Amino acid sequence: MSSPSLDIVAIGDAIVDVIATCDEAFLEAHRLPKGSMQLLAPEAAERLYADMGSARETSGGSAANTMAGVAAMGGAAAFIGQTADDQLGKIFAHDMHALGVRFETPPLGEGSPPTGRCLILVTPDAQRTMNTSPGASHELTANRLDEALIRSAAIIYLEGYLWGPERPRAAMERAVAIAHAAGRKVAFTLSESVCIVGRKEGFARMIDSGGVDLLFANQDEVFQLTGRTDFDSALAELSVKVPTLVVTRGHAGATALENGERIDIPAAPLTKLVDTTGAGDLFAAGFLTARCKGFDLQRQLWTGAIAAAEVISHFGARPEADLKKLVAL
Amino acid sequence: MSSPSLDIVAIGDAIVDVIATCDEAFLEAHRLPKGSMQLLAPEAAERLYADMGSARETSGGSAANTMAGVAAMGGAAAFIGQTADDQLGKIFAHDMHALGVRFETPPLGEGSPPTGRCLILVTPDAQRTMNTSPGASHELTANRLDEALIRSAAIIYLEGYLWGPERPRAAMERAVAIAHAAGRKVAFTLSESVCIVGRKEGFARMIDSGGVDLLFANQDEVFQLTGRTDFDSALAELSVKVPTLVVTRGHAGATALENGERIDIPAAPLTKLVDTTGAGDLFAAGFLTARCKGFDLQRQLWTGAIAAAEVISHFGARPEADLKKLVAL
Repeated sequence: MSSPSLDIVAIGDAIVDVIATCDEAFLEAHRLPKGSMQLLAPEAAERLYADMGSARETSGGSAANTMAGVAAMGGAAAFIGQTADDQLGKIFAHDMHALGVRFETPPLGEGSPPTGRCLILVTPDAQRTMNTSPGASHELTANRLDEALIRSAAIIYLEGYLWGPERPRAAMERAVAIAHAAGRKVAFTLSESVCIVGRKEGFARMIDSGGVDLLFANQDEVFQLTGRTDFDSALAELSVKVPTLVVTRGHAGATALENGERIDIPAAPLTKLVDTTGAGDLFAAGFLTARCKGFDLQRQLWTGAIAAAEVISHFGARPEADLKKLVAL
Repeated sequence: MSSPSLDIVAIGDAIVDVIATCDEAFLEAHRLPKGSMQLLAPEAAERLYADMGSARETSGGSAANTMAGVAAMGGAAAFIGQTADDQLGKIFAHDMHALGVRFETPPLGEGSPPTGRCLILVTPDAQRTMNTSPGASHELTANRLDEALIRSAAIIYLEGYLWGPERPRAAMERAVAIAHAAGRKVAFTLSESVCIVGRKEGFARMIDSGGVDLLFANQDEVFQLTGRTDFDSALAELSVKVPTLVVTRGHAGATALENGERIDIPAAPLTKLVDTTGAGDLFAAGFLTARCKGFDLQRQLWTGAIAAAEVISHFGARPEADLKKLVAL
């Protein structure tokens, strides 16, 4: 097997975020559970958008944000995700390329759903409530995967949000097979959506069969996936199934388990807290970049924490500060 | 004549801003004079966009920003401008409506140029260099004006950038006639572009014939329009032609002349300086809102200065803070 020419290739939603602030009453009036992500049908998205305040748009998508972060920290990253041939799709592609992320998935042609959007409502406490109209991003199919690209990366990184819809999930399962056949590692981020009833079983099978080498999750997701309510026992259950387990716990820090070693770190110091969108995405970016550059588990966690702290200090889920300098790998 | 039901209706470019940071070397390599605005043909815009960094998108357009500011400060505002029936046009319209600005110009149909974009490059000194691909916004024609809307506003506000192209200029001239026939006032912001050779004469004729009741300009524009290099004598020349003259001078503050009275104010205190895009637009917004609410000339200037200081403290030319509270009219 040839050695990898890329650090990481990700498969995820290709999404443009539409970010507005709102108050708690707005979330209540629209019955949106604060901090959650829900999928919206196009009409529901139009209705919510019409009610939302004036917005700013930035490229988003969970795994895409992670690749943006990896590239910003000096890692060699690529992204596979489905856009449409429209203005938002061009914005998404431009931002990927401008950050140095290899992104070559051709946009869908005439008649496809539009490029996906996520209507993000940020409350004064900096919590984000996400309302995704996935559009073209859920049209990703296995035959659109660039197999050579997948084989060329040391790690393939899969986004749980895209595990929900059938065709992208099949594409991801195919990607896992390609990566493992090439001797590469598979990283997966739970993104809460795999925990939804009906999707969890297939994911549990993949974990049980050794499909996941590195699992990213937050504490809630770990509880949902294991059905446990005690952190340590939930960790214990999962860590026998995945060689590397990384769990973020918001302001309580983060924990990694690998080869019988457990490391806990506190959250990185915050200069300010504006919008928590992208915290998990950038944590994964920092962790993976430090990992690919050969740093130890503790440093991997810290790099994740620093990258996450930067992204929550401003609106938008892509880094704005000079992350490379900030993490000093 | 009936009394106006709206404070201000503006005619201007309907534009979505695409904002990225860059260094001085980037501007030099692309031969872009820092601080300027240039019009780009679609191909040139594509080339520049491809070279630009990862961007954020916000609704823009000079007069549209001003109306956004007026509405944010509690004024009753409307906007007339041309979009296309595309994703950026929908973003522009959404943001106007979300801010409470009446905006009903129907988008152009099939085959029209896309909604206009402005590629804005912000250097570390917070200066913005604007590269406008005007698209549909330059397709505004006189027959698309809502005459009843124009008659319903106390002030019509015209953007100099849109004075350049022939058809929008004709639309503006028609709007001036409608407004004056209804006993309304005409405000005009120079936006540098009327100073360009070949456009200046028509504008000078309009001023000389009493077409402009309130002129907004910055110091450079006043020098270009009068051909003078001394501020006081340039002011003296212009002030006999326009009943109200308002000149912004960046960090040197602002000056207004009206009915033989001259007031100078310093710039408002700055908390931080991030991106100067929209400073003049929001200055006009503050000035006009205070004016429509019946405050004196000094307070009009100060309200402009406070609104301008807010908009340059962050990326994007639309207010983010609670302007209404900030200006406390």
